[in-house]
Amino acid sequence: MGNVDYVYPSSNDNQGGHAHQHRVAIPPPQPFIKSFKNSLKETFFPDDPLRQFKNQSPCRKLVLGLQYFLPILEWAPRYTLQFFKADLISGITIASLAIPQGISYAKLANLPPILGLYSSFIPPLVYAMMGSSRDLAVGTVAVASLLTASMLGQEVSATENPTLYLHLAFTATLFAGLLQASLGLLRLGFIVDFLSHATIVGFMAGAATVVILQQLKGVLGLEHFTHSTDIISVLRSVFSQTHEWRWESGVLGVGFLFFLLITRYFSKRRPKFFWISAMAPLTSVILGSVLVYLTHAEKHGVQVIGNLKKGLNPPSFGDLVFTSPYMITAVKTGMITGIIALAEGIAVGRSFAMFKHYHIDGNKEMVAIGTMNIVGSCFSCYLTTGPFSRSAVNFNAGCKTAMSNVVMAIAVMLTLLFLTPLFHYTPLVVLSAIIIAAMLGLIDYEAAIHLWQVDKFDFVVCMGAYVGVVFGSVEVGLVLAVAISVLRLLLFVARPKTVVLGNLPNSTHYRNVEQYQNTSNVPGVLILEIDAPIYFANSSYLRERISRWIDEEEDKLKSSGETSLQYVILDMSAVGNIDTSGITMFEEVLKTTDRRGLKLVLANPGAEVMKKLNKAKFLEKIGQEWIYLTVGEAVEACNCKLHTCKPDSTKEESQPWNNV
Amino acid sequence: MGNVDYVYPSSNDNQGGHAHQHRVAIPPPQPFIKSFKNSLKETFFPDDPLRQFKNQSPCRKLVLGLQYFLPILEWAPRYTLQFFKADLISGITIASLAIPQGISYAKLANLPPILGLYSSFIPPLVYAMMGSSRDLAVGTVAVASLLTASMLGQEVSATENPTLYLHLAFTATLFAGLLQASLGLLRLGFIVDFLSHATIVGFMAGAATVVILQQLKGVLGLEHFTHSTDIISVLRSVFSQTHEWRWESGVLGVGFLFFLLITRYFSKRRPKFFWISAMAPLTSVILGSVLVYLTHAEKHGVQVIGNLKKGLNPPSFGDLVFTSPYMITAVKTGMITGIIALAEGIAVGRSFAMFKHYHIDGNKEMVAIGTMNIVGSCFSCYLTTGPFSRSAVNFNAGCKTAMSNVVMAIAVMLTLLFLTPLFHYTPLVVLSAIIIAAMLGLIDYEAAIHLWQVDKFDFVVCMGAYVGVVFGSVEVGLVLAVAISVLRLLLFVARPKTVVLGNLPNSTHYRNVEQYQNTSNVPGVLILEIDAPIYFANSSYLRERISRWIDEEEDKLKSSGETSLQYVILDMSAVGNIDTSGITMFEEVLKTTDRRGLKLVLANPGAEVMKKLNKAKFLEKIGQEWIYLTVGEAVEACNCKLHTCKPDSTKEESQPWNNV
Repeated sequence: MGNVDYVYPSSNDNQGGHAHQHRVAIPPPQPFIKSFKNSLKETFFPDDPLRQFKNQSPCRKLVLGLQYFLPILEWAPRYTLQFFKADLISGITIASLAIPQGISYAKLANLPPILGLYSSFIPPLVYAMMGSSRDLAVGTVAVASLLTASMLGQEVSATENPTLYLHLAFTATLFAGLLQASLGLLRLGFIVDFLSHATIVGFMAGAATVVILQQLKGVLGLEHFTHSTDIISVLRSVFSQTHEWRWESGVLGVGFLFFLLITRYFSKRRPKFFWISAMAPLTSVILGSVLVYLTHAEKHGVQVIGNLKKGLNPPSFGDLVFTSPYMITAVKTGMITGIIALAEGIAVGRSFAMFKHYHIDGNKEMVAIGTMNIVGSCFSCYLTTGPFSRSAVNFNAGCKTAMSNVVMAIAVMLTLLFLTPLFHYTPLVVLSAIIIAAMLGLIDYEAAIHLWQVDKFDFVVCMGAYVGVVFGSVEVGLVLAVAISVLRLLLFVARPKTVVLGNLPNSTHYRNVEQYQNTSNVPGVLILEIDAPIYFANSSYLRERISRWIDEEEDKLKSSGETSLQYVILDMSAVGNIDTSGITMFEEVLKTTDRRGLKLVLANPGAEVMKKLNKAKFLEKIGQEWIYLTVGEAVEACNCKLHTCKPDSTKEESQPWNNV
Repeated sequence: MGNVDYVYPSSNDNQGGHAHQHRVAIPPPQPFIKSFKNSLKETFFPDDPLRQFKNQSPCRKLVLGLQYFLPILEWAPRYTLQFFKADLISGITIASLAIPQGISYAKLANLPPILGLYSSFIPPLVYAMMGSSRDLAVGTVAVASLLTASMLGQEVSATENPTLYLHLAFTATLFAGLLQASLGLLRLGFIVDFLSHATIVGFMAGAATVVILQQLKGVLGLEHFTHSTDIISVLRSVFSQTHEWRWESGVLGVGFLFFLLITRYFSKRRPKFFWISAMAPLTSVILGSVLVYLTHAEKHGVQVIGNLKKGLNPPSFGDLVFTSPYMITAVKTGMITGIIALAEGIAVGRSFAMFKHYHIDGNKEMVAIGTMNIVGSCFSCYLTTGPFSRSAVNFNAGCKTAMSNVVMAIAVMLTLLFLTPLFHYTPLVVLSAIIIAAMLGLIDYEAAIHLWQVDKFDFVVCMGAYVGVVFGSVEVGLVLAVAISVLRLLLFVARPKTVVLGNLPNSTHYRNVEQYQNTSNVPGVLILEIDAPIYFANSSYLRERISRWIDEEEDKLKSSGETSLQYVILDMSAVGNIDTSGITMFEEVLKTTDRRGLKLVLANPGAEVMKKLNKAKFLEKIGQEWIYLTVGEAVEACNCKLHTCKPDSTKEESQPWNNV
């Protein structure tokens, strides 16, 4: 029969797509270097950041380059008084949140409380210059603080050797910053993408649960507490010392927690009054301090912050630890906390950018966040990023640019210079209440329900992260979630879907018979669609699965006494790529079908697949005339051959299977 | 415009696929348990092994079950004298290869030479009962032997503590067998698929190179030799003691190697004389032994095997080591050698089954290979599998069933009982020559060239394995190759292809403009095809890539002054699946296009995708009327709306972009 199917029709009026006027093309060969360059570009520069540099003068290029790394140069010239008013209000609002939160999270990290204030001074200034988000409010975060405490705590005790512990925290921050900045510079930002939304939901909820459990120490006024973070150790520790519980502390804690939750609830219902919930933590701190000062509760089991040193951040580059064996712990802590903080910062920045319709370059953000941590580690700051809660307040307060971070930094600076003594009587239990209130907002059970409804596997990933964090540790949960996610990807590749296609009535379209209930099958022809790239990981499976489809089809036909199977059409539309194992699989399938007296037909192989099948000489083996542009054309050709009709026969003859 | 596009045509004669008579269907909902069971079945039982058990009586089921685990019950009743004649010849042929190879490989593993004979006696008998391959010849293999030596040798010296070393080798074999059998029983055979063809080519060539380098010790008659296997250590060790080289040994080695290669070359050219190359090793051993006996060369620096114990395998279950710290080494060695041996055995069995047109169940084979190693470890055998060289000889000799393994076992038994003293004068250098000759056949440079031509990435994987094995160690090479392979899969998922589609002239088909040179684009419409499932790992990338395509298209249109962009059609045919991150991505893309005044249109989403988009309520957001069965229909509808025509207008109007 040869190439009969490929005759070009002489007239153009046959537009039904029945005439096989198009061969499946083999893409023109490309030099190896060019295609290699292309894939490198797609892998590392998918957003084409150099696009705006094209066709510009060298001078303009320099300006654009500087603006690329220091976005402040771009927006500062256009800055107006109106913008400043908005940024001033939002800056003061987030400062009132930053001060108590900073102190709380520093306590969570087992670091001196003053570090929380230091960390809200230098890093926001750096970010204001380098960051491209207009809404991100820089500060420390609970999860990274907890992780720092648990990871460094395994090596060095914060109570027995506070100086070394402090220095290790700076070192970890330095390495976190170096990692973040280099990920950005090396355009490896996509590593963060491997933390899926489901992972983050589960992980955040788990971390929030763990942090809340840790606060039982403060709320119950306990002196001794376990160093583990898993729920079992913590509950055992809490309930083994019921006689040590202090009711004064408990009442104060529950009271302030109630106050914070009420204000949040109120602000949520009336978004105009966002500042009520934003001011609530500072109000609690002031109220609590006044209360303790007046009642001398610090003598009745209510622990207070105590003395805070006055003055700005002391330099700390001399304190960085570069000697074994401690450095390794610091590096490890830095890597893990750095990645997690980065993921939060990027996600928060992106969400608000999406909301306000501007674009954020993930890799550039990483450089900004990394730099602010590197600089921070040299000035007595520990790990900072863009926490969700603070950024949301910033957004609600109507911030316009990163200037709100500068305002916050100045407010914190004034606090550091003049107001630290006021925090002497602040009860720790208020800080615990502030943390608990913030953490309750991170347990997004609605998102988990949504995951369950839409995608069961994503729900498993989410719960894996949650259970891992709560019953194991933060690291265990993270590793578990990433492992499940990657396993899912591998499983998808290892076990691709193959579906049987049927003819949609009165059309030349062929679709999944399970999805479309009204399809009819073509006698003597089995049409399969392969739904994934064909790689070593799935080639054996596909070989077995295809023979099983053929077996099942032949059994069915035999039992119903219909025409025996003659053709197997593989729809390759969804096969994006193939490797040498995949090609070997095709050769084996071809042998099998030949032996069983069946003819193998391919429909619509893509560019990459055609290129490789051609190089591997498979096209010669199967015969170019058995490769069609669409399933419809392939079926028509098969049918033609089954009934030994000529390709120009009438449609009624060539489609006898239409069951009208 | 609403649902106007979905009116069903009243007449059936419009078969061109232009009328939008089919909506994209949402597959009927399935109970969670059912779909979960289905995916479990696809993952673990893709070959449906229980198919033949359906609709059978309980008694017949029992027989089938027994036959399933002991295939001998299936073929023995049909065994004929003619089969036996063929099996006898092939059995004797492989025995003549097994005896010298067994001794050689045992030396390679630093084990007593007699173990090579023991291992060719018990395991083949077990395999003959349980194995489903008719061509596999059981025996020890060079790579696993070398690995055993290098991994156990790190913990225990074979020369200083030979008894412990021997016991650890048995223990490693036991764990290898347990791992192999349980992989098969748990239907986890697909783990072996992750060793791709490219990995195995590179790995085998690397291992062969390393084994050949190790033979320099025997050929040059060196007494001291490095324990490392990497090329640099070995060459340094060889060339640092040039004064110790023994010319007698060298001449003998090169002479026999030449003889072996000549016979192999001859047999390859004339397949009828396969037995010449099969008998050559035994002939070399006999010739070498006679030569040494006559010339007393053992007194002139030619090392000989020495005394071999007479008698059958002594039981060794009492020797298994289950105490720390050695057990961990044994378990590790067992795991790695077990997986590698399994991969070789399965691949060899499959290749020959493919050749003779019968089917092999990989999981069943794993149970058989595992059991033979478990039993072997209790009777003084070390790790065995189905080596390629021996199985190829078996196949060429015309074996019919696994009975040839029984014949080989009996021949080895007779040797053990009566002939071991004859090996006293066998020179070690002959064994080295036999190993080198066998290993040269494993360096498949032609396969490497083929990989380079067809798939550059597979070539990189292959070279990674080779370089890792030769310059690092066998484990390093293996880990490197698997890591590169998995990275490739992840990279494929993380960076899917998106291609622009164009209209093929005189048709309603839309294809990749890079593959098909004669396509024309549709004014005002951008058609993109996404070539992979949409998962968390690629959703950010896809979002950025889609906006970049839109940017580029708008720039192009602006510079050429054409109609501005109005529609973006996403062809979803190749999107096999989606997760919640992917759905979020679509929501963001929809927001972006809305903001830019563009309309997003989906074409041909699959069953899984439609189900999830529906559950996530995305279908409501985009509007069901913007989802079409084919790109052609989507384009027609867009075009219709662009020119405010009615869907029933003539074709000339609805396809004004045809450039004839």
